[in-house]
Amino acid sequence: MDERLKKQMDFIREIDKAKSVFRQTYLADGSRRENDAEHSWHLAVMAFLLAEDASRTVDVLKVVKMVLIHDLVEIDAGDTYAYDPLGNASKRERELAGAQRIFNILPEDQAKELYDLWEEFEAQESPEAKFAHTLDKCQPVLLNDASGGRSWREHGVFAGQILERNARTPEGSEKIWEYEKDIIEKNVEKGNIIK
Amino acid sequence: MDERLKKQMDFIREIDKAKSVFRQTYLADGSRRENDAEHSWHLAVMAFLLAEDASRTVDVLKVVKMVLIHDLVEIDAGDTYAYDPLGNASKRERELAGAQRIFNILPEDQAKELYDLWEEFEAQESPEAKFAHTLDKCQPVLLNDASGGRSWREHGVFAGQILERNARTPEGSEKIWEYEKDIIEKNVEKGNIIK
Repeated sequence: MDERLKKQMDFIREIDKAKSVFRQTYLADGSRRENDAEHSWHLAVMAFLLAEDASRTVDVLKVVKMVLIHDLVEIDAGDTYAYDPLGNASKRERELAGAQRIFNILPEDQAKELYDLWEEFEAQESPEAKFAHTLDKCQPVLLNDASGGRSWREHGVFAGQILERNARTPEGSEKIWEYEKDIIEKNVEKGNIIK
Repeated sequence: MDERLKKQMDFIREIDKAKSVFRQTYLADGSRRENDAEHSWHLAVMAFLLAEDASRTVDVLKVVKMVLIHDLVEIDAGDTYAYDPLGNASKRERELAGAQRIFNILPEDQAKELYDLWEEFEAQESPEAKFAHTLDKCQPVLLNDASGGRSWREHGVFAGQILERNARTPEGSEKIWEYEKDIIEKNVEKGNIIK
């Protein structure tokens, strides 16, 4: 039996668990929360459709791979809600351990490729990582808006918190940020986000 | 307001519905059925990890885009179970209508790109389309095997049906087909698939 293919298939089976890591964001129709696999799929489609709006030219395949794998660490670390300060304090450590275990199921070269991609995303320095972060911030805003601001209301989120969290969103795409900002403002007016 | 970005964002909101189109395959842990968004995400990760095993050299970004969007037509057409002859008779017509409506939410050039990608997938002639089909056939076999053959048993599926459905799977990757075939044989021995 081919050892390389076995490792790849073991990894492919392992990441099925991302379909059971649920986020705070509801689907557009408000029926239930979204999971990491669905979120990552949505970002990947956005990545190639909106790459033309990235602030700097991006390697589209690299962005797509990055968003497809950026949340796999949560299989071990769990989803940390954006506005949970306690959870966010220990997030990095938990996610690092997850990355070490999960990516290392793969053959060494691919384990390194995915680990490096994840670290590049986390560092948010390269054009691809900045654009990936912009998508990652914009997508839940689209869904929250579509579901009548359900997740914002449940958590009593303040506009200031959202703006702070989005401080670097324009770095990836000024145009997408303008679109997202209009949605945030509309939801402040509606009372879904606290002024 | 930018008309192009508005169309792109309308499409991105519309495809959220793929998260509510459920397939017959169960998650690896058997807890519930998988949906189209999760399935497409899983195939996209497989696409770039296993591209080295494709029978012919493939444009990886093209395969990834193809698998990310290949099931969007099911938002309108619904999931047609592989071993449902009646459903499969009307499948093409229902899916064509879905493709016309859904892809045309996008700006014209991107609507054409995605429609053409979907048709290329359906035709199963290009190296990318053949490889995408191989992944699309292999992934549910991995999950069915992991969940103890639950979906096969529920539907009383025969080995001959699976082999017929996989007649062209080796065209995309002989190596992945060999791996998949071993799993099928193991499940015939276990009685999860009817001999």
